[in-house]
Amino acid sequence: MDFQSYFPIWKKLTPMQQERILNSLTERKVSKGTVIHNGNMDCTGLLLVKSGQLRAYILSDEGREITIYRLFERDMCLFSASCIMRSIQFEVTIEAEKDTELWVIAAETYQGIMEESAPVSNYTNELMSSRFSDVMWLMEQIMWKSLDKRVAAFLLEEASIEGANRLKITHETIANHLGSHREVITRMLRYFQNEGMVKLSRGTIEITNTEKLRLLNDM
Amino acid sequence: MDFQSYFPIWKKLTPMQQERILNSLTERKVSKGTVIHNGNMDCTGLLLVKSGQLRAYILSDEGREITIYRLFERDMCLFSASCIMRSIQFEVTIEAEKDTELWVIAAETYQGIMEESAPVSNYTNELMSSRFSDVMWLMEQIMWKSLDKRVAAFLLEEASIEGANRLKITHETIANHLGSHREVITRMLRYFQNEGMVKLSRGTIEITNTEKLRLLNDM
Repeated sequence: MDFQSYFPIWKKLTPMQQERILNSLTERKVSKGTVIHNGNMDCTGLLLVKSGQLRAYILSDEGREITIYRLFERDMCLFSASCIMRSIQFEVTIEAEKDTELWVIAAETYQGIMEESAPVSNYTNELMSSRFSDVMWLMEQIMWKSLDKRVAAFLLEEASIEGANRLKITHETIANHLGSHREVITRMLRYFQNEGMVKLSRGTIEITNTEKLRLLNDM
Repeated sequence: MDFQSYFPIWKKLTPMQQERILNSLTERKVSKGTVIHNGNMDCTGLLLVKSGQLRAYILSDEGREITIYRLFERDMCLFSASCIMRSIQFEVTIEAEKDTELWVIAAETYQGIMEESAPVSNYTNELMSSRFSDVMWLMEQIMWKSLDKRVAAFLLEEASIEGANRLKITHETIANHLGSHREVITRMLRYFQNEGMVKLSRGTIEITNTEKLRLLNDM
């Protein structure tokens, strides 16, 4: 499987544009925990995930984090190349959540093609509106949902991503995903344990009653 | 002043595209308080503000609101035509904050032109990333800033929009902008009054110490 089969609108590019993209390409392998892009760095380029998992988050002055979206196989990340659009006025950090293989498309090459190609520009629009929808969903969660429901939703999502009910994850990590504090998450998880929804042990959280967790989330 | 001089990329359209836009156009005058678009309604079309002021907000199941952005003269609103992009999966309500004159461009006409025209598609991208930046700013405010700073920032912004320190605005309205409750806002404003930053009277809030309010906001 090569780049051409991963890039979603490859066939809508002219042969010349295809060549420009291929020439601008770099392939990277990064290990879990690597920060691939941070808001203050230069325009890293567009990321296309071959395998693995990335997390995009924002960071407060005090170092608190909140996850705004995740990227899986075949997902493309625009905001690591925010220089391609004047109006993008915010900064995200992108980090590998698992060992990840990815391609980096040079920002200026993509920008040049986007300016002349309606299909590429329209695809970029779809990409952006999809991330926009993620962020609006997140904002609604933060505004209208209490933390117990957000923790429940997070555990259920993790279990679905991992395909397992036994999650290797620290309370600190959950706090970073949800923009909360470790102590607050620990207290919440202990409450979940008392209610029989999870079982806590060092470094792992096991979901013992998916149905009850789902009910809490849906309430 | 006519539509052509308000539409930002008029000169980048072909004569045929210009004609299609003009044929699809409707002009509307709405009075303050009118809901122009709500999430559940059909695809209203793109809004271009001739004069006045619009507010876009999201709504919780319990009827709480939070303002996500505002539109002034010459601003264009995309999310009243969210049907033009598959990936827009959220709903906003748009209401006139002042008596407003606007044009509505039919969604399917704009979509057709966007699909064939790189300049229109790129312009749409800029528009979306600009709104995206508004929402990211708002999320950072909600996540990392306490309510006193958000109320201070809101009063300062209102004063700047109105060009006056005496604001005709209810506590309920402020609560709706900030996704809070009237009682909470009233308590905060009374605290501001005790601190000598504002003076409250029926239906109005007068900023009496801009500097102090600004300091609070910057802290």
